[in-house]
Amino acid sequence: MSIDYQSLAVRGVQALSPYQPGKPIDELARELGLDPADIIKLASNENPLGPSEKALAAAREALSELCLYPDGNGFDLKQALAARFGVDMSQITLGNGSNDVLEVITRCFADVESEVVFSQYAFAVYPLVTQAIGAKGVPVPAKDWGHDLDAMAAAVTDRTKLVFVANPNNPTGTVHNAEAILAFLERIPERVVVVLDEAYCEYLQGEGYADGVELLSRFPNLIVCRTFSKAWGLAALRVGYSISSPEIADILNRVRQPFNVDTIALAAATAVLEDEAYVQRSRKVNVSGMAQLEAGFGELGLSFIPSAGNFIAVDVGDDAMGVYQSLLEQGVIVRPIAGYGMPRHLRVSIGLERENAKLLKALSNALGLSGQGA
Amino acid sequence: MSIDYQSLAVRGVQALSPYQPGKPIDELARELGLDPADIIKLASNENPLGPSEKALAAAREALSELCLYPDGNGFDLKQALAARFGVDMSQITLGNGSNDVLEVITRCFADVESEVVFSQYAFAVYPLVTQAIGAKGVPVPAKDWGHDLDAMAAAVTDRTKLVFVANPNNPTGTVHNAEAILAFLERIPERVVVVLDEAYCEYLQGEGYADGVELLSRFPNLIVCRTFSKAWGLAALRVGYSISSPEIADILNRVRQPFNVDTIALAAATAVLEDEAYVQRSRKVNVSGMAQLEAGFGELGLSFIPSAGNFIAVDVGDDAMGVYQSLLEQGVIVRPIAGYGMPRHLRVSIGLERENAKLLKALSNALGLSGQGA
Repeated sequence: MSIDYQSLAVRGVQALSPYQPGKPIDELARELGLDPADIIKLASNENPLGPSEKALAAAREALSELCLYPDGNGFDLKQALAARFGVDMSQITLGNGSNDVLEVITRCFADVESEVVFSQYAFAVYPLVTQAIGAKGVPVPAKDWGHDLDAMAAAVTDRTKLVFVANPNNPTGTVHNAEAILAFLERIPERVVVVLDEAYCEYLQGEGYADGVELLSRFPNLIVCRTFSKAWGLAALRVGYSISSPEIADILNRVRQPFNVDTIALAAATAVLEDEAYVQRSRKVNVSGMAQLEAGFGELGLSFIPSAGNFIAVDVGDDAMGVYQSLLEQGVIVRPIAGYGMPRHLRVSIGLERENAKLLKALSNALGLSGQGA
Repeated sequence: MSIDYQSLAVRGVQALSPYQPGKPIDELARELGLDPADIIKLASNENPLGPSEKALAAAREALSELCLYPDGNGFDLKQALAARFGVDMSQITLGNGSNDVLEVITRCFADVESEVVFSQYAFAVYPLVTQAIGAKGVPVPAKDWGHDLDAMAAAVTDRTKLVFVANPNNPTGTVHNAEAILAFLERIPERVVVVLDEAYCEYLQGEGYADGVELLSRFPNLIVCRTFSKAWGLAALRVGYSISSPEIADILNRVRQPFNVDTIALAAATAVLEDEAYVQRSRKVNVSGMAQLEAGFGELGLSFIPSAGNFIAVDVGDDAMGVYQSLLEQGVIVRPIAGYGMPRHLRVSIGLERENAKLLKALSNALGLSGQGA
């Protein structure tokens, strides 16, 4: 081949490294010759409960329509979301997971001449989508692993088109309270679009946290993103959404692919919104699992970043990749986050009690093997 | 709201009109107070057979995994496609429908300084994705409703990064034979990526047609796109793919969203590839339905564009929107294609025998009412 197609790609794409997802169970089973049933995956912040029965029933029923295109307007799901949040259907944009919504937003408002502000240690998709369109990413150094909101506001320039704030943040689990978010939004010029990514908001416990949807009426430049992949337990189906002004939603809806959310996904997401008990159980299992892991890490002498999400980043020492590898060999998949600039941490999703126990046992073995253990 | 967010969107997006999908059955039922069961939709080139039993069974089984992220690498589906087409897994890029693949390709290779060549009357997604990134679309006048391949080759300039060729084309159903496609590819410089969109290739009858996959070894700049939405009957699930050189696939895979195809979609698409009988039945129903519609149009004195797809564009006269509206009121959804610059035509998807008969009857009524009928 005489031509280097790499060099023909647009500049941003040439320098792009793809997102590294958690290793799938089947892949590990293939690689190590393990039985998939013996493997646990605490790597992708998935809901350990298994699916909501209501979502399952709706998905099963929707299978009869496999030959027909989805409803490109997502009428039923938008109606259910609008009712739940007290907003108008015209404020909602549906996405193939919130990843899709984040990408569409970036493509709508940023180009090669723009700057996009996000925090160090924030969700990897922000720099990736920024890079793909050739905009300039402006990572702002974190404070205590969390967003330094003052520094982020100060990083806004005339070229800034977008600011991403993850609250709670992945992979650190850090969170800001309502007061801090409000003060931040007040400092951002109206011409700069602020994306408040609340993928993990359903896990927040207690009072005083910001609810992005309540802030929309005060901040026309605000877009709130949420997902069905975490507390709602539908990661397999890829459904996310944003709520914004109708004007911004109209712009986003021009760029999203017309059938970006599929029929089964629309049906299951609409149904799961009726299953309040499911999301409450998700929260409960998360609280007790978090306590179990925090106590276990303490016993192993490991420090961790207190987390408001359904995962926790634990400092396993200098040889985090060695520990990761040892966990894999014991049939436990977690997430190395060296790619986030956190080479000593592993991110562990909160599992069921027995899964957390298996992780702690395997971690103890791994640390013992590498000579750093308790 | 003091700020006009429209004006803050990137230039290409400001001028974008979203894709107009076929009207969903539920939407028409809501609007006209009809029973959805009394409505037929021949508007989106869907497979009228209902889903493959093998696809259904696989989809049903995959529902147990709703809480887990999909396999972002699509291992099983890529393996099945690679085996079917005698290519390497590294040559395949999966998409959320072929729309997704077409968009990813455009974002990888074109930017605001590029030109993208496509034919007049070609699939609407080509100009849309071109416009969204602010590249210059170069529509080349059609010849007898089909692509004028000579003129398209002549339209390539130093700024051309991409050429889209739909074969067969939607919405006209026109097709070029192998000789013509080969001669065309030989005229395109290697530095220009050619996308051969074969979404409808499974419906081709007889010999002499180009098979894009067979041309890949000769043309390193070629990307062949296909879909599970038509002959394979999985439009609801959004699965498309491209086959190209591994080098180009590597570029595309950096830009596609990491979980762009969902778990149910991956499972059903992998399974349906085993159901050769299904795709053969799809073809057979299409041949007889096409003959039925052609004969019916002839009886109504209507001319049509001979089609190689699973749809047919019929000239219903000056008041095509009136005819469309009358068909809607009779519970028959077809597709007006004035947006394609074909204001006299309606595009009718090939249905089952009774659906085609209902369409012909309704069309006869509609033409009678508007005074143009047989």
